[in-house]
Amino acid sequence: MKISVYAISIGTFVPMLRALSSILDKGAEHASARNFDSAVLVNARLAPDMFPLVRQVQIACDHAKNSTARLIGQEPPVFEDNEQTLDELKARIARTIDYLQSARETAFEGAEDRDIKIPLPNNLALEMNGLQFLRDWALPHFYFHVVTAYDILRHNGVEIGKRDYLSHAAGHIRQHSEGGV
Amino acid sequence: MKISVYAISIGTFVPMLRALSSILDKGAEHASARNFDSAVLVNARLAPDMFPLVRQVQIACDHAKNSTARLIGQEPPVFEDNEQTLDELKARIARTIDYLQSARETAFEGAEDRDIKIPLPNNLALEMNGLQFLRDWALPHFYFHVVTAYDILRHNGVEIGKRDYLSHAAGHIRQHSEGGV
Repeated sequence: MKISVYAISIGTFVPMLRALSSILDKGAEHASARNFDSAVLVNARLAPDMFPLVRQVQIACDHAKNSTARLIGQEPPVFEDNEQTLDELKARIARTIDYLQSARETAFEGAEDRDIKIPLPNNLALEMNGLQFLRDWALPHFYFHVVTAYDILRHNGVEIGKRDYLSHAAGHIRQHSEGGV
Repeated sequence: MKISVYAISIGTFVPMLRALSSILDKGAEHASARNFDSAVLVNARLAPDMFPLVRQVQIACDHAKNSTARLIGQEPPVFEDNEQTLDELKARIARTIDYLQSARETAFEGAEDRDIKIPLPNNLALEMNGLQFLRDWALPHFYFHVVTAYDILRHNGVEIGKRDYLSHAAGHIRQHSEGGV
């Protein structure tokens, strides 16, 4: 079986978080080139009642971390939300990746059938199996915050593009002799 | 096997496209309430050199449609890029969903191992198996354009939130008796 909860979850979170980290680098370079404090970017947002970059990155990390923990039946480590700089956000991403990489592939066996409950107010709960949780909750939330972080920086003039967002796709590029493709 | 290329691809694209369609409805309501032409939203963008809403929606549809076709070894239907209104974009989404739903689950058997090549300039090509293609190409591109469409509308004051983006998650909500969760 080539397709597994491990392959889809860790195999998405880790490279996308690495891409997010390099996108933050581009933000820092942009601030440095334009001679403004990169904390402006950390606090930038797309709408007054929408989370700023710092929260987008924190929440993206938390969805990756907490979803992984739920899928393997662990308690997720708790990270304080105290980042104030791009470097601190990069450190949080690195810590998140460390946690993701510490999860062993065998721990995901049967994760697709694991009952996952997320309590909601008023005696309601989200109840999903692991597959539904991964597909209908973890991934859409994760991508929401990664892409919104990208969009905040792009909106603020940072020179990033799809190649930064999907830098790991470059690993699938192959050279062919003339006419080989 | 509960986790399959079919479950992850069609099971992501269809509900997310439905959510995108209802997000466009919220855009139309907002324009109507504020008494401005909703074509302003169709052409809104987050940066001068970034695609406007119309292209974000078109490309989200195309990634869903073309990825599905590649995964099942079909030629994808070609849709003209001629939408100019929110209603026309909603029609494109509906046509895309029709195509996705016409793909039979059995056609995805073995899709995870299918060799997929995307030609690039200079005799380069992206070469991936179906799993890699789905995870490292189709899904991140799809989510990129869905979320950016959301972000464009949100940036322009449309009253949308996560419950619109993830409306299908409501299907997983269960009521419990007191203390049951």
